[in-house]
Amino acid sequence: MAQTYFDHNATTPLDPRVGEAMLPWLGRHHGNPSSVHAFGRQAREAVEAARERVARLLEARTPEVVFTASGTEANNAVLLSCARRASFGGHLVVSAIEHPSVSRMAAKLEEAGVAVTRVAPGREGRLDAAELVAAVREDTFLVCLMLANNEVGTLQPVEEVAVACRERGIPVLCDAVQAVGKIPVKVEDLGVDYLTLGAHKFNGPLGAAALWLRKGAHFSPLLVGGSQERHRRAGTANVPAIVGLGRAAEISLAELEARRAAMEALRDGFEARLEETLPEVLFHSRSVPRLPNTSNVAFPGVQGEALMIRLDLKGYAVSTGSACSSGTVEPSETLAAMGVPREEALSSLRISLGTTNTAADVEAFIGVLAAEVVELRRLAPAL
Amino acid sequence: MAQTYFDHNATTPLDPRVGEAMLPWLGRHHGNPSSVHAFGRQAREAVEAARERVARLLEARTPEVVFTASGTEANNAVLLSCARRASFGGHLVVSAIEHPSVSRMAAKLEEAGVAVTRVAPGREGRLDAAELVAAVREDTFLVCLMLANNEVGTLQPVEEVAVACRERGIPVLCDAVQAVGKIPVKVEDLGVDYLTLGAHKFNGPLGAAALWLRKGAHFSPLLVGGSQERHRRAGTANVPAIVGLGRAAEISLAELEARRAAMEALRDGFEARLEETLPEVLFHSRSVPRLPNTSNVAFPGVQGEALMIRLDLKGYAVSTGSACSSGTVEPSETLAAMGVPREEALSSLRISLGTTNTAADVEAFIGVLAAEVVELRRLAPAL
Repeated sequence: MAQTYFDHNATTPLDPRVGEAMLPWLGRHHGNPSSVHAFGRQAREAVEAARERVARLLEARTPEVVFTASGTEANNAVLLSCARRASFGGHLVVSAIEHPSVSRMAAKLEEAGVAVTRVAPGREGRLDAAELVAAVREDTFLVCLMLANNEVGTLQPVEEVAVACRERGIPVLCDAVQAVGKIPVKVEDLGVDYLTLGAHKFNGPLGAAALWLRKGAHFSPLLVGGSQERHRRAGTANVPAIVGLGRAAEISLAELEARRAAMEALRDGFEARLEETLPEVLFHSRSVPRLPNTSNVAFPGVQGEALMIRLDLKGYAVSTGSACSSGTVEPSETLAAMGVPREEALSSLRISLGTTNTAADVEAFIGVLAAEVVELRRLAPAL
Repeated sequence: MAQTYFDHNATTPLDPRVGEAMLPWLGRHHGNPSSVHAFGRQAREAVEAARERVARLLEARTPEVVFTASGTEANNAVLLSCARRASFGGHLVVSAIEHPSVSRMAAKLEEAGVAVTRVAPGREGRLDAAELVAAVREDTFLVCLMLANNEVGTLQPVEEVAVACRERGIPVLCDAVQAVGKIPVKVEDLGVDYLTLGAHKFNGPLGAAALWLRKGAHFSPLLVGGSQERHRRAGTANVPAIVGLGRAAEISLAELEARRAAMEALRDGFEARLEETLPEVLFHSRSVPRLPNTSNVAFPGVQGEALMIRLDLKGYAVSTGSACSSGTVEPSETLAAMGVPREEALSSLRISLGTTNTAADVEAFIGVLAAEVVELRRLAPAL
């Protein structure tokens, strides 16, 4: 059975051009970028070319880009570095809908003695900049606000928060993992101090991510050992994955606007057709700025988990929330933080589109989705 | 010009069979192993199959294997976890020739309040088990002893140390990154509590490594966020690299003995031919048990760095020490810890052989090496 993938916020297929760029580093070429000889030099040059490409995508300076193995590692590193500087005291502000790599680390820091304020979003999943800024205290050492939420796709007022924080001398971490490759992300426009991205969310490979550090921003490394990444991240660089990240960044820079428009047309078409077919559905976050590819929909009277599993059997991959919290029956943390009632949250699905999806995929999906919803309601009318 | 690679302790070329196993995950297949749908399931099965293969290589139980992105991450994670449990107090014992991912982390912990004892090896680079055990105190929370040194290849008395530590209830971390794939490494024989390995040191890919944790051994994760790896390591699993690690482990299990014997014959042949040609050379650690592929040689009167660079220009890649500390003119930390005089250490090269090297490569290399040594002595007779 043909499988259609509508879970691009969990991970994306590799762009064949990215794979092509990586292949020489999984065959002909090898070398440790720290080695002085020709093999090492060639690996180093490949890594540095990738760094330039990532910097260009972000309109950042090349030396400010540090490669890591995952967005989780990059986010963890910033929180720990800032907390360490504050001697695991002081105060941290996070939005209540951050990725677990921020929210769980915040919880760990709280256990260690840091005061943490979690600022809830509005009912549509967008934070109020003034509310976030109002949470800042004299001893706040970091404010964390993601650029785009992974579950509902809402865009956050990072720029406004960063301006206000900058005036107070408080650094801001922007987790842009879900945003990069879907919308323009320029570090100077955002005005933050730390920004993270991950290759596999925009048709690059697993195993490569980046942390952008504003020049002069405090940073002490999470991983220590060798002197890689100018002593900011120890461990042998994953050359093929980093090369892939560079190529994905380059492609994204060239094709972003066309992709964004195509995604948005597809997503909006999906939502329009869905509400024609099932007028009772509720779209989360539809009234606020959001990613062009993400739709999060509640199907009243239907269990989201059951619907997802039935769709999977019919060849459609969707999610009930963040991939990281799947497998549990607890409602999505993001929807809960938005104040979505438990039953409504548990009836929700995330459909996240990608470059390989077509209007025909979406049309076929609408038919299957509607039939499954009707069938589930028939089976469990009391729900 | 054909380039011959004699720097396999820095990184190894990918076995084509490993590349073949990875390729489907860089093309046809994709999926986040945390996703519930078919794409996720398939990715999860691939990761779990790799875990089984790694466990089989180590004769360990599958659930005890945790995937990380690098040996550095795995080593860092164990040291930090144990130090955290000791509230950054207590006492840590490390050999003085550990990899920087252990030694630098030990130094960081020392700054944070941990007492650290560094036990020096003998002149040949092998630790005395009794000396290490004698360093243990009432409040020792961890002993770190690598299985094979990366620079001179010496094998360490891990088993004896582990037996003594076990009696005292003190956990042992064995960094086996340089050993796995070159000699048999079985966790039960070693008797340690934590063991680390990295795929790219035995013809697997960059970006995949493993931490083996004995059942019941204390561990709190370094990376937090999603619930991956049974909450022991957050971040989306690097599926292609992990699949590659699994395949490399499988190949290693099948071919280890043949490889080991071939490497040893090649290395011993190299050393015999080298001393025939240049009788004044000094072999480090030749009198003690060491890896089959590693030769570390001092060329009296010659600058190792200059010799390495000249050899590179002639198409031979060798190292003057660990790849991680290259680029500096300081002598190798391992040789320094062994008590090798500074000048002798600075005249040393590491030649580390691999599966693709042949006797003809070695024979050709001997000629070039001897000519370069003679030429360097001619140029700088006073050195």
